[in-house]
Amino acid sequence: MTDSIKNFLKDHRNQHLDQLKDFLSIPSISAQSEHSSDVKAAANWLSNALKEAGLENIQIMETKRHPVIYADWLHADGKPTVLIYGHYDVQPVDPLNKWHSEPFKPVIKDNKIFARGASDDKGQVFMHIKMVEAILKTNGELPVNVKFCIEGEEEIGSPNLYGFVENHQELLSSDILLVSDTTMVGKNKPTVCYGLRGMCAFEIELKGPSHDLHSGIYGGAVQNPLHALTELLSTMHNNKGQVTVDGFYDAVQPISEEEMKTCMELSQDENLKTQLELDALYGEEGYPTLARIWARPTLEVNGLYGGFEGEGIKTVIPSEAHAKITCRLVPDQEPKEIAALLQKHLESHLPTGVKLAITWHDQAKPFLTPYDHPAIEAAGDALKSSYGVDPVYARMGGSVPIVELFNTTLGLPAVLMGFGLDEENFHAPNEHFHLENFDKGLESLVDFLFNVKEKLS
Amino acid sequence: MTDSIKNFLKDHRNQHLDQLKDFLSIPSISAQSEHSSDVKAAANWLSNALKEAGLENIQIMETKRHPVIYADWLHADGKPTVLIYGHYDVQPVDPLNKWHSEPFKPVIKDNKIFARGASDDKGQVFMHIKMVEAILKTNGELPVNVKFCIEGEEEIGSPNLYGFVENHQELLSSDILLVSDTTMVGKNKPTVCYGLRGMCAFEIELKGPSHDLHSGIYGGAVQNPLHALTELLSTMHNNKGQVTVDGFYDAVQPISEEEMKTCMELSQDENLKTQLELDALYGEEGYPTLARIWARPTLEVNGLYGGFEGEGIKTVIPSEAHAKITCRLVPDQEPKEIAALLQKHLESHLPTGVKLAITWHDQAKPFLTPYDHPAIEAAGDALKSSYGVDPVYARMGGSVPIVELFNTTLGLPAVLMGFGLDEENFHAPNEHFHLENFDKGLESLVDFLFNVKEKLS
Repeated sequence: MTDSIKNFLKDHRNQHLDQLKDFLSIPSISAQSEHSSDVKAAANWLSNALKEAGLENIQIMETKRHPVIYADWLHADGKPTVLIYGHYDVQPVDPLNKWHSEPFKPVIKDNKIFARGASDDKGQVFMHIKMVEAILKTNGELPVNVKFCIEGEEEIGSPNLYGFVENHQELLSSDILLVSDTTMVGKNKPTVCYGLRGMCAFEIELKGPSHDLHSGIYGGAVQNPLHALTELLSTMHNNKGQVTVDGFYDAVQPISEEEMKTCMELSQDENLKTQLELDALYGEEGYPTLARIWARPTLEVNGLYGGFEGEGIKTVIPSEAHAKITCRLVPDQEPKEIAALLQKHLESHLPTGVKLAITWHDQAKPFLTPYDHPAIEAAGDALKSSYGVDPVYARMGGSVPIVELFNTTLGLPAVLMGFGLDEENFHAPNEHFHLENFDKGLESLVDFLFNVKEKLS
Repeated sequence: MTDSIKNFLKDHRNQHLDQLKDFLSIPSISAQSEHSSDVKAAANWLSNALKEAGLENIQIMETKRHPVIYADWLHADGKPTVLIYGHYDVQPVDPLNKWHSEPFKPVIKDNKIFARGASDDKGQVFMHIKMVEAILKTNGELPVNVKFCIEGEEEIGSPNLYGFVENHQELLSSDILLVSDTTMVGKNKPTVCYGLRGMCAFEIELKGPSHDLHSGIYGGAVQNPLHALTELLSTMHNNKGQVTVDGFYDAVQPISEEEMKTCMELSQDENLKTQLELDALYGEEGYPTLARIWARPTLEVNGLYGGFEGEGIKTVIPSEAHAKITCRLVPDQEPKEIAALLQKHLESHLPTGVKLAITWHDQAKPFLTPYDHPAIEAAGDALKSSYGVDPVYARMGGSVPIVELFNTTLGLPAVLMGFGLDEENFHAPNEHFHLENFDKGLESLVDFLFNVKEKLS
């Protein structure tokens, strides 16, 4: 990177952080309809920031729910085009009482910024904008062409982006995809990610008697939906930590010896136990922790509720019981096929005396890319020069469904260069982002654009 | 009953219902600390109503939480003394959105009064007061001595009444106990209850990682407390509807052939299915519905919660999972012994990777009384003369822990003459009370006092 860009970033650091705080103050929770106008406000904020950065053709493109923001800079004739994807929506904030500071009043403490979205993904989207701004305001031009496609529905499974990408293939056509929505494998371990798990999300409702019943008067004579739910859910795992849904593992690719070795070498089990205050980790028998997260599918109950939750005791048999569940999928599991297997399992294991209703939520295919692609090298080299250490090439356990979408629809190989850390509480209270990675990450992103010009032109 | 008392009740019916509405308007929810002052207000209301009725020595007797109301009339020299027990506290009202009218704005519709506590138990406590008032204001004296002991903590397991009764044995000493906090077995089937189930209530918390985790980043590598909870709870029943806690049934008395016959004869299975909109009833294999409710113990999950409950999906592994549970006990199960068995089961079946915390709530011994006692006959005769049909002698599935307390501590045989109906939604939205049973019940109670004089003097 040139000194002039380096100095630009240094000189504008405080201003950048103020802008980021401003962006993070908008409660753009896509899942909750009462926050629709906040999501819109975040879209407007983004559009202004992109303009300010020197991007062109900025469009707030409406969908059925939350808009997609498009922008580009296409004056690097004959050079490759990088499509940058990110999302400006965030997760809900409950339980609110576990936050040490308010989720939408960003606070900087110990060189970390605390706020919902600080790391996932508003903070990293902001870095992409500042990468472009720093180069343009210093050099007057970018080394390659750039397109931005920033959505507002990632945390609810991108229901409208699929149609959007399908319908705007020309607008979005590029050579590679850049996403910063994953994590580094550890502190000062900059990471290029070459694989992600997919997803199949759903919720079930078990309906028993027409209304809540007194457990003294009826207890013993009717099915309790909470019993039925625990019975049903307990049929979905065995005591080896395996998912017992028939056919669930049929399409799963075995893990290569080389990858298994990497999983062992990168093991952080002891740190993880300390960090999570656990006596023991737990997972599928026969696999080390990283293999369980990178390359093995899961079925995870994310929420369970029914009956009385208040103070004290209420002797009730509730009329309903609910569970929210997500499966993480790995190649070559197909979300639709897994959904069919799940439905069959739930129906065939349904206890007596309750009715089952399934609501399907987001689905995403798993994603895996060859890592000898020059774009991956461009990312690794950029990380090495900013962080001063060899980068890690790894898979991740999360899902960025859109990566697979761009891969399939637009034929784009993806570079996942994320700057979050696992300990940063995404989706949980006290989400934060280490500013050390804001600074080094921003430098890496700048270098990456120059490397892409060199390696892909 | 004399015509003058009958006329008194008729003439004052509207006034009585207005007073009852006033009583039911007070949200005396004992479980919720924000309603403490409402519980106090209900205690004051009661104390005034007892005075108005002509009772004497009225005392609002403080306990550690909610007061006990005492009153008496002791001028029937040489005649038996009836101790009347009831409770002026009520259950919480959630889910509030399922109420058709507000729980604390009583409404009369189709000759039923709708409000929390209408049936359980404020409505029936009110009837006892009006029984005394009607006799005193008509005859100037009662046929027997009467003591009232009305508590404000029944719905939270009467934590302070045990000590209270222990410490006031002389004040409360009587010949029989009268309680109206049970139900009739059906419409126009007036019922004398001679047995109740006991209770052992508790809640469990399973604690996993120190904070909520992203299910992509950690999913597959740590125990999910919700999985552990469903696994643990699923070990507590088998597919025959039996409780699988070791030793749970050891002390259970077998059901007599005669009682089994009664259970069959009184069967309301088809009505019950229609009323609850169920395709099938469900319970312990080998027992008819009424036997399951009267004479078999249960382990019932009353509430289950953990993780995300909001709209949409949140990909979280929660750090905690919770269950609230009550066991209904039958003779000769001892709550303390059952608690020990439960604890042993929970500890020995605890899944890996979570910590268990148990909080014990109320315990009550089951209760069974010989029904050739003259007080039972006094009740049956009174019901027969008001309702014009033979009364049913039955057990009930619920728990009125205090009955066993008075039985043990004061040596009182109990007459349980309740006027509620199972369909009246106690502990659920839209609780109500049939005014037909308010009218006939009040007459029965008046007759009962005269019958007691005759049969027990």
